Amino acid sequence: MATMGDIAKCLGVSKGTVSKALSGATDVSETMRKSVLETAVELGYSRVSRGGSGRRVAIFVENMAYENPDDFGRDIITGFRKLAEPADYQVDVVALNEEIQRELPYDEYMLRGGYQGAVFLGMTLLDPWMRDFRTCSTPAVLYDNHIKSNPLITHVGIDNDEGMDMAVARLVDLGHQRIGYLSSALGSYVYQARYKSFFNALRQHRLDAHQYVAGYSYRISECLERHLPRLLDKGCTAIICSHDLLAHTLLIHCGELGIRVPEDLSVVGIDDIPLCRYTTPPLTTIRQNRTELGKCAFHALSSQLGQVPISTLLLHAELIERASIGPVPPAKQGR
Amino acid sequence: MATMGDIAKCLGVSKGTVSKALSGATDVSETMRKSVLETAVELGYSRVSRGGSGRRVAIFVENMAYENPDDFGRDIITGFRKLAEPADYQVDVVALNEEIQRELPYDEYMLRGGYQGAVFLGMTLLDPWMRDFRTCSTPAVLYDNHIKSNPLITHVGIDNDEGMDMAVARLVDLGHQRIGYLSSALGSYVYQARYKSFFNALRQHRLDAHQYVAGYSYRISECLERHLPRLLDKGCTAIICSHDLLAHTLLIHCGELGIRVPEDLSVVGIDDIPLCRYTTPPLTTIRQNRTELGKCAFHALSSQLGQVPISTLLLHAELIERASIGPVPPAKQGR
Repeated sequence: MATMGDIAKCLGVSKGTVSKALSGATDVSETMRKSVLETAVELGYSRVSRGGSGRRVAIFVENMAYENPDDFGRDIITGFRKLAEPADYQVDVVALNEEIQRELPYDEYMLRGGYQGAVFLGMTLLDPWMRDFRTCSTPAVLYDNHIKSNPLITHVGIDNDEGMDMAVARLVDLGHQRIGYLSSALGSYVYQARYKSFFNALRQHRLDAHQYVAGYSYRISECLERHLPRLLDKGCTAIICSHDLLAHTLLIHCGELGIRVPEDLSVVGIDDIPLCRYTTPPLTTIRQNRTELGKCAFHALSSQLGQVPISTLLLHAELIERASIGPVPPAKQGR
Repeated sequence: MATMGDIAKCLGVSKGTVSKALSGATDVSETMRKSVLETAVELGYSRVSRGGSGRRVAIFVENMAYENPDDFGRDIITGFRKLAEPADYQVDVVALNEEIQRELPYDEYMLRGGYQGAVFLGMTLLDPWMRDFRTCSTPAVLYDNHIKSNPLITHVGIDNDEGMDMAVARLVDLGHQRIGYLSSALGSYVYQARYKSFFNALRQHRLDAHQYVAGYSYRISECLERHLPRLLDKGCTAIICSHDLLAHTLLIHCGELGIRVPEDLSVVGIDDIPLCRYTTPPLTTIRQNRTELGKCAFHALSSQLGQVPISTLLLHAELIERASIGPVPPAKQGR
């Protein structure tokens, strides 16, 4: 790993100048500071190699609410902080957008900010820094995103295979033989992973795993209009949805169509957002325990900073059973 | 989680008696001690719930050498200890066998020994405790084994998908279009996982992924005799082996057959055992960094003891390139 000495040598300046430039001292010109940072990035220098105490890390959040108690990101951040702050980490939460990413490469942003590593919540496959992650030299923990072959990147999430298996197993217990799946468009890593997990679970339980039992669309309304009639037509007596909001909309839509849940159709969501307890009927869902996910993210990042390159860290899934699932309708038993 | 009070209530004895029985005090009869332990196991009581300092954990080792510096298990244990002992854990290494497992269920063994959690190295799918793990109430971290749906069990290993992808990508760079795979019998979780990863990697690189490019047998000699002629006949110019020992034997066997490595055939192993640097030619292999795996096992177990139920923790894989791989033979280019 590159040292300050390497940067100094490369630029023909003293180590003191490099140190000042990296720490943001005011007696170094902006031009020198820029050269030092660019060279540091080129040589793969990162704050990790400096060691010392009082470590600074960042949690970047994009496409995810986190400011209010019920927001999805809030508990993840709290879980992270619960372990990080007693361990003497300074944690900054940064609202991320594409502009920030286009302005500076990831490594350079981290060097300028004095951060040793980061956690990312809500990134999409199209975010500019997703390319940087393939070769970056600063550790990054990605919630629900996966980058292959860079030892400094860790993927954290729940065990989707396990969660989907639990949901399908429970539905099979209740007599369901034809289970459908509705999903957001497969443009993100996690929706792709859940889609795969759904079909893996069907195959494990020897159920019909033909592609017509699943449908995905970019918009929720389009998803319901395009795919729900086909799923019902194919005899699905239970439907798993890629996330709770879609499941909740399905419940409302069923009400409008006169389909009773769970008497005519069982519905399962994923996430366990606070809303689930208040839907009609209350929603059965595969829980992502967000506080624990935050703790997992901390374990992953602190392992990375301790030079243990974790690739994947998955939290156990949990099936939270509420009133939206029930026995298969008598008329459809044994179909 | 059950408390000592719950056990006392259930047996109609005082909490003091339960505490004494659990701590192995001599003024409690062996009959009482047995009742307390059995009730504790039934109620799902485990040491974790006691909290306090001076935690005791066990590393169970079976089917794996660990006593000498070059033994596979040695560095895993050392890696674990490097993190565990400074964190005030007492670590016992226990040579495991089927008798121990048949004599006492896992939870009871742990309670009697005063252990709060354990790491398992070298378990097979047929081990009696593997059934216990489905429902046990004491945390267990399994190296290269996976149990679904018990939140107290964590799977630790390397990212086989990533490792296999790195090996196949490098061989494709060298011009190989037909890559074969030789494996031990698929009776263990890890050989099943690697077999799947191999075919995933072939498909990702749009190579021929017909089953005839892979072969597995219980014995190494049988594996080479039964499958190598077919792989060569099908035009394989590179072969990945499920573990280094098989790859090493393949190198020797190629020497006997007059097949030059890497001029006629490229060979890749998995594990990076110390022998790899000394084979003829030195073996290219997918490394399992054993010290880091031990550290991962500690991270996983300490998360479990801190009530964060990790399902899976995978270490990044690494491709160690040595002389056993080379460009595809000119006569077979573009085949």
